[in-house]
Amino acid sequence: MNEIKNIVQKDAFAKFLGIKILSIGEGTATAEMTITKDHLNGACTAHGGAIFSLGDTVFGAASNTREGLAMAINVSISFFKAITEGKLTAVAEEISLHKKLATYIVRIFDDKSKIIALFQGTVYRKEYKEGFDR
Amino acid sequence: MNEIKNIVQKDAFAKFLGIKILSIGEGTATAEMTITKDHLNGACTAHGGAIFSLGDTVFGAASNTREGLAMAINVSISFFKAITEGKLTAVAEEISLHKKLATYIVRIFDDKSKIIALFQGTVYRKEYKEGFDR
Amino acid sequence: MNEIKNIVQKDAFAKFLGIKILSIGEGTATAEMTITKDHLNGACTAHGGAIFSLGDTVFGAASNTREGLAMAINVSISFFKAITEGKLTAVAEEISLHKKLATYIVRIFDDKSKIIALFQGTVYRKEYKEGFDR
Amino acid sequence: MNEIKNIVQKDAFAKFLGIKILSIGEGTATAEMTITKDHLNGACTAHGGAIFSLGDTVFGAASNTREGLAMAINVSISFFKAITEGKLTAVAEEISLHKKLATYIVRIFDDKSKIIALFQGTVYRKEYKEGFDR
Repeated sequence: MNEIKNIVQKDAFAKFLGIKILSIGEGTATAEMTITKDHLNGACTAHGGAIFSLGDTVFGAASNTREGLAMAINVSISFFKAITEGKLTAVAEEISLHKKLATYIVRIFDDKSKIIALFQGTVYRKEYKEGFDR
Repeated sequence: MNEIKNIVQKDAFAKFLGIKILSIGEGTATAEMTITKDHLNGACTAHGGAIFSLGDTVFGAASNTREGLAMAINVSISFFKAITEGKLTAVAEEISLHKKLATYIVRIFDDKSKIIALFQGTVYRKEYKEGFDR
Repeated sequence: MNEIKNIVQKDAFAKFLGIKILSIGEGTATAEMTITKDHLNGACTAHGGAIFSLGDTVFGAASNTREGLAMAINVSISFFKAITEGKLTAVAEEISLHKKLATYIVRIFDDKSKIIALFQGTVYRKEYKEGFDR
Repeated sequence: MNEIKNIVQKDAFAKFLGIKILSIGEGTATAEMTITKDHLNGACTAHGGAIFSLGDTVFGAASNTREGLAMAINVSISFFKAITEGKLTAVAEEISLHKKLATYIVRIFDDKSKIIALFQGTVYRKEYKEGFDR
């Protein structure tokens, strides 16, 4: 887990967006992000990219609690509600874990604990030594 | 189109990430983003959230060239290659256009014009006056 | 619910594939399908289309427990395990319900209750009188 | 290619649904299916599972023109239009090809050549000898 926490702590993009990892467990992770004016799109609601990034960060943290380096290969996200302010919380759950492939659900909630987006992602896991090319 | 360009120009998150819209047409849009250290994840490659955000920005721009306010309801993205530096370009193409629903493909390329991610997104379109709730 | 059960009972394709609805509740449904040789692909495992169809059937049943006619607009499915025989069970869960749009997760299990596929689907709901065009 | 055509010809489920492969090339395939009453759902339109199955069949054929056995791991499909009759045609296009992972788009058309569904799928490729477990 130390290596994982290191990967998470070195995540410059998560920091840039103000994402804070709250907890990491075996196949799970929770993070939060308070919406600022930097996160808004032209319609003055939180940009889909900002919401996805929060989800992707817990997905990456949760999937990297397992052996090897997990890289996202597919993600589907459904957006339920436009959000203009407040704190978002994302929770990752491991649905399937195989040696090479694993799939996670991430639920994203607003500050009233209402689900605002659902994220389903699959990682491909490889040995650290292999490098990043698939 | 003026209203659209206004929405795109007011996109604070796109600006925050350094995304530049290169062109907008009927149902299409192109944008670029040069990877900086702020875009990197803990494995020192461009964060999935940064790549998604580039795609989401041209998806939003292309879908908002049509009548009404288009809101993303579903997106699927496949990542093909980890990227550490250079300029990414995203191109949106309209696949299906109905009054309420429309679907777009976004192809994202690295600076050698190799496709690094594929993004398929659907918007739900509503009248401006209706407000954002679905 | 009577109208719904009628829609489900009239589902010729579900019957053709041997899918049996076990239960339908508010926003939920469960069904099963025993794999036969008609469901196999050229690699002698259950065809992705057969597994998807089982998931799509409970998705349709669950989403049509609500007001109006629900039509699938987007589905993402992840396959975890190749299956060659036995009974599959699919369970739909409602994640988000709005007037026009709703999203469901379907978990598909093999006969040892191991999850073999995860299905995330969104419907667009319209009045019966509107007809099918979006 | 002989081995591939063999896999395609042995596809019992495709036969069961009346799917005919029209052509297979390097990373591509085309097939058609005429809608019969067996394909209809309770709303008397072609079942999403039938449309998906047509798409999945060309996806499987196209991806198996490459080395090794390709298994679908993720698919996203968007449905644009309810169809009640006629011949559907599906065309697969290879978007990305790596040793282990490859991604395809499948466009599905009605008998007026109007696109009625878009399908984006990723396969994981393994050696024949490895068996099916991931």
